[in-house]
Amino acid sequence: MRGMMMERPLRIADILSFAAEVHAESRVVSARVEGDVHTQTYAETARRVAQLANALTRMGVAPGERVATLAWNGHRHLELYYAVPGIGAVCHTINPRLATEELLYIVHHAGDRVLFADITFAPALAQLRERLPKGLPIVMMTDRAHMPEGDWLCFEELIAGEADHLDWPELPEETASGLCYTSGTTGHPKGALYSHRSTVLHALMSVAALPGTFQAHHAILPAVPLFHVNAWGTPYSAPLTGSSLVLPGPRLDGKSLFELLDREAVYSAWGVPTVWLALLGEIDARGRTPQGLCELLIGGSAAPRAMIDRFEDKGITVTHAWGMTEMSPLGTQNTTPPRLADAPAEAVRALKESQGRRLFGLDFKIVDDDGRRQPHDGRAVGELYVRGNTVISGYFENAEATAAAIDGEGWFGTGDVARIGPDGMLTITDRAKDLIKSGGEWISSLELENAALLCEGVAQCAVVAIAHEKWGERPLLVVVPAEGAAPQKAQILAALGEHFARWQLPDDVVFVEALPLTATGKISKRTLRGQFAGHTASAPER
Amino acid sequence: MRGMMMERPLRIADILSFAAEVHAESRVVSARVEGDVHTQTYAETARRVAQLANALTRMGVAPGERVATLAWNGHRHLELYYAVPGIGAVCHTINPRLATEELLYIVHHAGDRVLFADITFAPALAQLRERLPKGLPIVMMTDRAHMPEGDWLCFEELIAGEADHLDWPELPEETASGLCYTSGTTGHPKGALYSHRSTVLHALMSVAALPGTFQAHHAILPAVPLFHVNAWGTPYSAPLTGSSLVLPGPRLDGKSLFELLDREAVYSAWGVPTVWLALLGEIDARGRTPQGLCELLIGGSAAPRAMIDRFEDKGITVTHAWGMTEMSPLGTQNTTPPRLADAPAEAVRALKESQGRRLFGLDFKIVDDDGRRQPHDGRAVGELYVRGNTVISGYFENAEATAAAIDGEGWFGTGDVARIGPDGMLTITDRAKDLIKSGGEWISSLELENAALLCEGVAQCAVVAIAHEKWGERPLLVVVPAEGAAPQKAQILAALGEHFARWQLPDDVVFVEALPLTATGKISKRTLRGQFAGHTASAPER
Repeated sequence: MRGMMMERPLRIADILSFAAEVHAESRVVSARVEGDVHTQTYAETARRVAQLANALTRMGVAPGERVATLAWNGHRHLELYYAVPGIGAVCHTINPRLATEELLYIVHHAGDRVLFADITFAPALAQLRERLPKGLPIVMMTDRAHMPEGDWLCFEELIAGEADHLDWPELPEETASGLCYTSGTTGHPKGALYSHRSTVLHALMSVAALPGTFQAHHAILPAVPLFHVNAWGTPYSAPLTGSSLVLPGPRLDGKSLFELLDREAVYSAWGVPTVWLALLGEIDARGRTPQGLCELLIGGSAAPRAMIDRFEDKGITVTHAWGMTEMSPLGTQNTTPPRLADAPAEAVRALKESQGRRLFGLDFKIVDDDGRRQPHDGRAVGELYVRGNTVISGYFENAEATAAAIDGEGWFGTGDVARIGPDGMLTITDRAKDLIKSGGEWISSLELENAALLCEGVAQCAVVAIAHEKWGERPLLVVVPAEGAAPQKAQILAALGEHFARWQLPDDVVFVEALPLTATGKISKRTLRGQFAGHTASAPER
Repeated sequence: MRGMMMERPLRIADILSFAAEVHAESRVVSARVEGDVHTQTYAETARRVAQLANALTRMGVAPGERVATLAWNGHRHLELYYAVPGIGAVCHTINPRLATEELLYIVHHAGDRVLFADITFAPALAQLRERLPKGLPIVMMTDRAHMPEGDWLCFEELIAGEADHLDWPELPEETASGLCYTSGTTGHPKGALYSHRSTVLHALMSVAALPGTFQAHHAILPAVPLFHVNAWGTPYSAPLTGSSLVLPGPRLDGKSLFELLDREAVYSAWGVPTVWLALLGEIDARGRTPQGLCELLIGGSAAPRAMIDRFEDKGITVTHAWGMTEMSPLGTQNTTPPRLADAPAEAVRALKESQGRRLFGLDFKIVDDDGRRQPHDGRAVGELYVRGNTVISGYFENAEATAAAIDGEGWFGTGDVARIGPDGMLTITDRAKDLIKSGGEWISSLELENAALLCEGVAQCAVVAIAHEKWGERPLLVVVPAEGAAPQKAQILAALGEHFARWQLPDDVVFVEALPLTATGKISKRTLRGQFAGHTASAPER
């Protein structure tokens, strides 16, 4: 029997309409590419979004067509987040840090109809122009005064004459709304194609998972880019609750971030560990934390214990989170359970190294190599599969990658190796492809890295697998020394030796000035593996 | 174009499964009919729910069938909230305060398949038995030791032998899950038939509207009954966030509530004004508030300003809310907007008299007598219509009432008369049927009541329409004097005269010892109108 309830499609446009009315005075603050800090309310944002949507329609953008963005975190990018899906088109965010060939592949594969870009990217786009689709209109996200040389449209001119109101069209909630490509370790980038339903549910689920964060009187700063999995959903979850959004633009260095956090009294800032490492440096240099900053949400890569400790010692709560492009992206959050309210700090912090517990609306399973479910007992380890409305059912126009990612029961394989506790606590032990298989046994590069980060003089590090004639693979530790420090190989191996079996220890430790990063700011193990492919060192006998 | 996202049905069973894993140690505390205070965790609740669901299946309850409850707020009632919809059946909550004929009408109209009842109701049910459907099994919600005399099944015996795990069936999200009848002023009660989709979305929307309330370390006490519009959704929204639930059973007097709030350090308590009036008396008698109590959510009827002031003076934040059985029920909440953070207390409290701003996911419109939309300018008044996934599309097996309630655009007519500010602030000025039409002009009974409550010596009051030969209707003010006070008619009318035109003033003031209440604890204007039908007093000349 069916209930007798209205069935209204979940619709992205309704989030901003709601914020514009109910939280009209909450703010969108943008450190813009042009150099200024710009503030507008949600009410003003909604009017500009209507103008932009009307302009897109006038340009001939039709429902289902893709509109690409190549831009930092700023209000015009946010406006595209609402205007494009609002008219039934698809907002395709492109990562500007991608290699040229990948970027070109993505634009062609997505069949983008218009491209919106920050002026930062004008020189690069001028060079690429001939290889982009013929006649692709490119809109520079600025006003006339800041327009770069070249044959571009101007964002502010485009929207200036348009009506600032729009009755948003009715759309089935399964309508595609956003597209984000993720670079795998092999093959072409693959596209996750979000829907209105998945996006609205992700926003609601995020708020339910982090109610302490999403309050109308808080400001939230996503340091994680809008071009990378929807800035972890903040463009939708913040307006839904009236939280202000502070968008840092291209400058994610410690000094710029500190000043913006401080100026806007940001409550919660979200980003990857590398960004927060820079902020820590700035905090140390100034001898104080940004005013009002209470929480850091750290994801993208595992938050090292040392980083957790340094922030929490300064009174900033660290909330570890985990997710994937294919999950919209939030999968878990690790706020401290109430039962630990009175526990010693050490117990609380130790727990923070785990990725946390699932959001309502997601299901997890871990399976062995034969696909058999493993118990959630905190000991069994397996590949993590996920299911839920915010998880992809396949990749955009890529049947082969879809077939490889979805199992027989319809679950998505994350490629992460994990254990799950009886309390739902997820601990990622490794990326499947980052595990090192030595003599038939697995060695966790992540666990080695976390231990190495605690060694004196180690600022950053990575463990990668090096091919080995006898053992198949052996671990190599690559270390960036802390400024002014000169850590020694023997001393590091001795420290690791206290926690690991001899055969699990890295065969060698090499020191470098910096680690290569991927387009999303994570350490590129692929690059490191290539760089050290020929490296030899003798494995210890087992 | 469709997104490529998994489409999993929103399902009530998933809420408790989530709580049982992720918030396993959060508690369900019940002041039971048997006299004790019982505590179990969400993990234990989930196991008992599985047992109950297995027992229902064994009894032959099939998907789509209605299972009735006649019970106070307690863990067994909560267990039915999950077990019944979990197997695809419909949890039909019956209000035990209904008149016998209405109760019988409801049981027959719903076609209930089983009836679960608290032992409190054994004597009444024994008397009614012959008029209930033949062979209707009745389960007493207790253990063997507390079973009343008679031919009943025993809840604890029913579930004792059952497996405490169940793979919940896949159900389309539009599947009916709950049924609640609402008594109108005329005709038979009408049933609102909720779905899994509407229920899960209502829980998510409630949390997004009240993130400060729904935190894992908070306990929430619904004084509003589980038999009355889902205790405002708390049985679903609390587990979704890991908040503990404190269920007060049948004793809603000031002393019992105070002691339970105090004992469990409840953070937020939800209920109608009459209940909080009793609590205020107890707080005054003890000279302190219950420990940990920070927030009262007041709905069901408008919260009088005097009550708001008395609680806020004691440091307890009052959040006014408004909703309807037909809306699952939450429609608005009136937490204070951040812009008033530094405003004077008087400005903040004045705003609290309004019902608040809509939840995300709902749309409001106000229309005039011809159905024309009125502006949301804070001045125009009209009948309020609502739309959203949590609003009924009609009444259960009642085409006539459905046709009367839903307008040509598919919106539900609330019967409330309201104005809406540009900031979305909803102020109910009256129930359409409670407006008094005097000489062609409307007089608001609600505004008169709010003013009268501020008069010295007035504890409670109601304004009702009395038929009048010349003017059609005229207002009558019925007053319950405060203990030991002897307010005078002339003094009250003089005080009202400072805020109202002479023709708007009540023709007479009568003093009574108590006001009649409806089955849901609201003042029964229907009864009052009948009681004073013959009352005469001369209207002032205009």
